[in-house]
Amino acid sequence: MTSPLKINQPRLIARLDELARVGALDGGGVTRLTFTDADKEGRDLLVRWMRELGLAVQIDRVGNIFGTRIGETDDAPVMFGSHIDTVKSAGTLDGCYGVLAALECVHTLTEQNIQTRRPLVVAAFTNEEGVRFTPGMLGSAVYIGELSVEQAWDLRGFDGTRFGGEIQRVGYDGTMEPGAIEPCAYLELHIEQGPLLDLNRVPIGAVDAVVGITWLEITVNGAANHAGTTPMDMRRDAGLAAAKIVTYLREIATTLGGNQRATCGMIQFLPNAINVIPSKAIFTVDLRNSDNDALQKAEAMLVEFVKKIETEDGVSVEVRALEHVLPVQFHPMAIQAVEESAQKLGLQFQRMVSGAGHDAQLMAHKFPSAMIFVPSREGISHSPKEYTPPEDLARGADVLLNAIVDLAN
Amino acid sequence: MTSPLKINQPRLIARLDELARVGALDGGGVTRLTFTDADKEGRDLLVRWMRELGLAVQIDRVGNIFGTRIGETDDAPVMFGSHIDTVKSAGTLDGCYGVLAALECVHTLTEQNIQTRRPLVVAAFTNEEGVRFTPGMLGSAVYIGELSVEQAWDLRGFDGTRFGGEIQRVGYDGTMEPGAIEPCAYLELHIEQGPLLDLNRVPIGAVDAVVGITWLEITVNGAANHAGTTPMDMRRDAGLAAAKIVTYLREIATTLGGNQRATCGMIQFLPNAINVIPSKAIFTVDLRNSDNDALQKAEAMLVEFVKKIETEDGVSVEVRALEHVLPVQFHPMAIQAVEESAQKLGLQFQRMVSGAGHDAQLMAHKFPSAMIFVPSREGISHSPKEYTPPEDLARGADVLLNAIVDLAN
Repeated sequence: MTSPLKINQPRLIARLDELARVGALDGGGVTRLTFTDADKEGRDLLVRWMRELGLAVQIDRVGNIFGTRIGETDDAPVMFGSHIDTVKSAGTLDGCYGVLAALECVHTLTEQNIQTRRPLVVAAFTNEEGVRFTPGMLGSAVYIGELSVEQAWDLRGFDGTRFGGEIQRVGYDGTMEPGAIEPCAYLELHIEQGPLLDLNRVPIGAVDAVVGITWLEITVNGAANHAGTTPMDMRRDAGLAAAKIVTYLREIATTLGGNQRATCGMIQFLPNAINVIPSKAIFTVDLRNSDNDALQKAEAMLVEFVKKIETEDGVSVEVRALEHVLPVQFHPMAIQAVEESAQKLGLQFQRMVSGAGHDAQLMAHKFPSAMIFVPSREGISHSPKEYTPPEDLARGADVLLNAIVDLAN
Repeated sequence: MTSPLKINQPRLIARLDELARVGALDGGGVTRLTFTDADKEGRDLLVRWMRELGLAVQIDRVGNIFGTRIGETDDAPVMFGSHIDTVKSAGTLDGCYGVLAALECVHTLTEQNIQTRRPLVVAAFTNEEGVRFTPGMLGSAVYIGELSVEQAWDLRGFDGTRFGGEIQRVGYDGTMEPGAIEPCAYLELHIEQGPLLDLNRVPIGAVDAVVGITWLEITVNGAANHAGTTPMDMRRDAGLAAAKIVTYLREIATTLGGNQRATCGMIQFLPNAINVIPSKAIFTVDLRNSDNDALQKAEAMLVEFVKKIETEDGVSVEVRALEHVLPVQFHPMAIQAVEESAQKLGLQFQRMVSGAGHDAQLMAHKFPSAMIFVPSREGISHSPKEYTPPEDLARGADVLLNAIVDLAN
């Protein structure tokens, strides 16, 4: 067994720092929404780095960026990467770490004159976060053919802009047909964005599944009335009914167990006055599970409870599905490459599920895929407080490096 | 027993309609916030009507308007009225009905050449609604000395304006010292703003108490985290904790029974994102009861439950009192005058409690007071849909008329 390869930690951190300065916010954090000027500047920097490393850069018709390092053969390449768009007030690691670690892997191989049998492709997908344009994971969705280029171009951003207009404005309307490069495997390195590795003090997560997601918007219709004069038994209190349903979400998760999650993140009362019984309550529900049967059970439990509340509280409730994403099981061969790489490096790892969505879960529909997680301090992400120690970032990149070399040979 | 007096229904309705045109909104309803141009116009109209009826008009230093009809003696007068300021998008009856019915009573007496032993005073208090300037019931609070003129003048409106500046702007900074007229009794006629009279098909409510009000703002502090990646048992979900407390409000009201009310009318989650566990939830609680011991018990139950939730959910909760208004018991003599008047008119009546605040509850601190309620269709108020049939409005004014004549002789 050859000794494991190691990336250059300071160089990885330096690139992360440099990219983090593009769209940096006063007081910390960064905002680079898809196809904004900041995103263009970040893309330009990435493309420059790719070219400096001798990669052949290709941009596809939705702005996905690919940098290819030729292999000893023209066999299907190994692809690895993530995205560089961010949420608002993001940290500096989400997505960027996966792309710049990928770049660093290539840099290390080139520096050490190591050739691989298969070509290697560093990938940066467009609009993973889905903040400016909905849906998220857009670049990978188009790449695997779940969304057409035309559908993507017709999307309207929350700011009223058109995807097609904005991609042209920043000059990332490439000519490559999405899906044209067909990798033999896709790996994505990412911070966990959850607390488990940090809590368990395990440096590497070998991700074998991504949870399915059900997003619902629930609207409770009651009747506005005076909080002082309306007897309790004559009320149709939309706020109370909503509170009961939100409380029940925890019961759903507890009853189903496993990795079932249930969250209400947004709520609004109307008319929202201190002395008026709410006529309307609108809130969102986020249900996740890596087991699709359980996820459907969770939704069914919720709908059943909603019917009970309609009767008990004299309200009418509309449940609208905002999004249904199926759970994804990653490919055994790709997971094995990650685990063997960690073993080779003598790094402790654990099998785990991703609770967040990633481009890898869409790529997995067409290509053998897996993910590598590194710890996120306190599980904090989508926040300027997002943090992973440099040595943990280097360990994750080392695992990626040895895994792709393994897969490419 | 003399036959009961009756007011002129069409004239009452005509005045209500004319005042409703001041600040009228397209599509129905009216907005006349304190000391706006619309409020000035409404005041000017009221003062003109008072003068046309030969009343001596006095304006006090916070803009309360009094129109006095002389009596056969200079004994302490009987005062009756309400307010003509409105909430935003108000109906046309709340407050205005009490003032214009008072005016109509005087008009009827004058028309029929009926003299009373005591003088009669029609009153319109400033800023009862408390929408532009907080607190509400401001004019009556100053009138009984619970708030000083200086404190009132220093208040800032939600629009940043100063009470003292706005009262001068509209020219209602009178010279009369608040409290200078000391009535032997104060009566206030008002729509119920609740469903009971309408539901019971009873035309008159003899109001013997006004509920006390406790307004609280509750802030739950948890921790924002990713809705997908954070295990359920590691969450400090401020939104869930808030939902549990809101749900418990109904239990408080049910446990205490009587006329206990408990309402959450406003809520806000932070950061309020579909896939983020709320770090903070802020909501209001409105507790009411005519029994002060029960009202305090309700608040104590809530605080005890909040402590339990702090432990169970790992959140910290701040409970801030926004307002504490003590319940008020009206004066037996004044209540009796109302009931005897209704009996004399052959109108069915019921004793009841006011669930909403009124100037009468402050006047009651210094002067024997009571209120008369008429039905509100479906209990709807603070809405353009507020409605009471003209014949019900006339019946209430008839009760007021005979009660004040009784009290004034």
